[in-house]
Amino acid sequence: MALTATESATSTASSFGSAVALSCRECGSRYDLGPVFACIECFGPLEVAYEFGAVTRESIERGPKSIWRYKALLPVPEQVESLPNMNPGLTPLVRADRLAAELGLRSLYVKDDSGNPTHSFKDRVVAMAVEAARTFGFTTLSCSSTGNLAGAVAAAAARAGFRSCVFIPAGLEEAKVVMAAVYGGQLVAIEGTYDDVNRFCSELIGDPAGEEWGFVNVNLRPYYAEGSKTLAYEIAEQLGWRLPEQIVIPIASGSQLTKIDKGFQELVKLGLVEDRPYRIFGAQATGCSPVARAWENGYDVIQPVKPDTIAKSLAIGNPADGPYVLDVCRRTGGAVEHVSDEEIVDSIKLLARTEGVFAETAGGVTTGVLRKLLAKGVLDPEAETVVLNTGDGLKTLNAVAGTGVTATIKPSLRAFKDAGLL
Amino acid sequence: MALTATESATSTASSFGSAVALSCRECGSRYDLGPVFACIECFGPLEVAYEFGAVTRESIERGPKSIWRYKALLPVPEQVESLPNMNPGLTPLVRADRLAAELGLRSLYVKDDSGNPTHSFKDRVVAMAVEAARTFGFTTLSCSSTGNLAGAVAAAAARAGFRSCVFIPAGLEEAKVVMAAVYGGQLVAIEGTYDDVNRFCSELIGDPAGEEWGFVNVNLRPYYAEGSKTLAYEIAEQLGWRLPEQIVIPIASGSQLTKIDKGFQELVKLGLVEDRPYRIFGAQATGCSPVARAWENGYDVIQPVKPDTIAKSLAIGNPADGPYVLDVCRRTGGAVEHVSDEEIVDSIKLLARTEGVFAETAGGVTTGVLRKLLAKGVLDPEAETVVLNTGDGLKTLNAVAGTGVTATIKPSLRAFKDAGLL
Repeated sequence: MALTATESATSTASSFGSAVALSCRECGSRYDLGPVFACIECFGPLEVAYEFGAVTRESIERGPKSIWRYKALLPVPEQVESLPNMNPGLTPLVRADRLAAELGLRSLYVKDDSGNPTHSFKDRVVAMAVEAARTFGFTTLSCSSTGNLAGAVAAAAARAGFRSCVFIPAGLEEAKVVMAAVYGGQLVAIEGTYDDVNRFCSELIGDPAGEEWGFVNVNLRPYYAEGSKTLAYEIAEQLGWRLPEQIVIPIASGSQLTKIDKGFQELVKLGLVEDRPYRIFGAQATGCSPVARAWENGYDVIQPVKPDTIAKSLAIGNPADGPYVLDVCRRTGGAVEHVSDEEIVDSIKLLARTEGVFAETAGGVTTGVLRKLLAKGVLDPEAETVVLNTGDGLKTLNAVAGTGVTATIKPSLRAFKDAGLL
Repeated sequence: MALTATESATSTASSFGSAVALSCRECGSRYDLGPVFACIECFGPLEVAYEFGAVTRESIERGPKSIWRYKALLPVPEQVESLPNMNPGLTPLVRADRLAAELGLRSLYVKDDSGNPTHSFKDRVVAMAVEAARTFGFTTLSCSSTGNLAGAVAAAAARAGFRSCVFIPAGLEEAKVVMAAVYGGQLVAIEGTYDDVNRFCSELIGDPAGEEWGFVNVNLRPYYAEGSKTLAYEIAEQLGWRLPEQIVIPIASGSQLTKIDKGFQELVKLGLVEDRPYRIFGAQATGCSPVARAWENGYDVIQPVKPDTIAKSLAIGNPADGPYVLDVCRRTGGAVEHVSDEEIVDSIKLLARTEGVFAETAGGVTTGVLRKLLAKGVLDPEAETVVLNTGDGLKTLNAVAGTGVTATIKPSLRAFKDAGLL
């Protein structure tokens, strides 16, 4: 971090590709590309601004079979695919005819992000943070997490040769601890709640001791968040360079939903897809539904809630991008809806039974909201629709723990026939 | 299954692509493509024989981003990618520079098959069995399993719209039961050992009640087994159309190892890669190492063993393809080696720590054997080497269950500094 201003400018010019600045989402103030995340003027969130060069469908299709095929649209260096990184993305867009038939939809696809290296969409955003951390000369990769992010950061740090230090609340389930610890980084349990962990991390970032630390979703957040745009790019390319007419996206902080919208808009501006209307629908669990409540009540502000749901990966009670989510859903003619824990479990089973996709609870939330909004007549059953599964059922086994064997029998054909199983 | 011989011939001609017959591996007798698996003449295993048309690197590279890009080399119909199937494959070939440096290897890659839809290589073989089952008009997809295969079959059946019925020994761990049951098929626990389950399945196949049942690894085995060839094709393509000089492959039944050899040979014959020597190394767990023992002793026959190892997915005490594995390893100048459960766990952690790949126990076996054969001077540290990880660490969490937090601290910077973690 001993770079002078001049050196920094030179290094970032080549290291961030077509990204040219950070820009405040509220007041538009611009900043040099750096490890900063909030506007000095108005405290608004900063996001990456670009000056895109020529990008064609063909140049993308010739690229790597990962998110790096879209590198011209991301804040990463030209040679990114030769650097050690988890190389996530290009996960399956599953044509879901059997689920569509059951729900009465004409055309449905599941974007299944459990296909990423650590089996959640977090690999996309962490991959961006890794490249930014490399450019800024950080030596330690860090985050606070209770789930998917912990594993994604620890794995990516191992691959890229960073030291990692991940903070979790004490008392997490053993499976989650193992998944974060196995990559050999530091895993520090903090006595307290997840909020206590976050407060501790803020303290560390402000201290000289944290100078060489890249917190993926704090001081690297503007870069990190851009990773979600790749979901938009992939869906459009996998549909044959076409935007879906409707898409159902889970809401945790809300960042993913707003970045998918940003990705769609970029594709239109670059002439890579036809400019046709699309409707974005946000999905929350009833037990943590501050954005859905605001939508219902027509509010512009989000009332924080205390989460109580099995959909832990969406359990952010005070979602930073909530107001932007409301904007996007209003502008595109979408909606925000919520489903109960019971509906989440039913929907996990529905998706597994019809399409062979075993989703995390977040995938139960989106599938449940898809079903609910169809039943309400809010979603158009004739429109081409995409629903996101952002994680893997293997990581939230407890949600379907009751699912067991059909029968237990003695090892004979007679016993099998007697059990009425033929 | 009421097809006449003529109808069957017509249907199979189009449904099995360039496959033309089944051929006995022992005596060479040929059979029409059908749901049969053993030679009537000599009881030898049957495998698929082809008459390949023109196949080029370009025709493959233009194909789907799944194993179906190699459909011209598989027993599947031309339009296979439009049929409901899990579409596995094209999993990452990870350039493992950090692991290579630690082991003193010049060039190493990890073929990471945990990227498949149900996170093991079994998705490749089951995808073949699904297409064969469709062609033969089977209505139920079945298997006996204690792990990866159960989930792969249940998921693929759900996707493709088959009824599924999977048989497991009673008393399996809950996580495995949930993973097989969540897809909504029948899951039948058999009171007894895995051997009892297999005997029961043989009884069912011979009974009229089992007429419309496709057991993926019994009456569909010749088609099923071909799926492993796709590992060879992918590795060669991902290396830039080149065979690796050395490859380390796990041995369960031994089928995968022999099929990867078959795949490499096909690529050479078709002129898709240069004909250069490659050495194949087989990997077993010490607690189930019948092939490694035969190799050590210079035997041609395999003495069955009673498995006792944490590498459950490799725990086949009487591996059907064991003698063929010995042939391949001898012919290519390779070897067969085994590692202890302790070495397996160490190797899982080594792979996770250096490359961010969290492997199943089978991946610990191959990585452990890689390390052991390098230390012994059997593997050449200068030769380009590939090591297979065939499954996901999430499915064998128990193996590394002791892995936990570095420290537990109070939520303050002082506590963090006092713990000496900076």
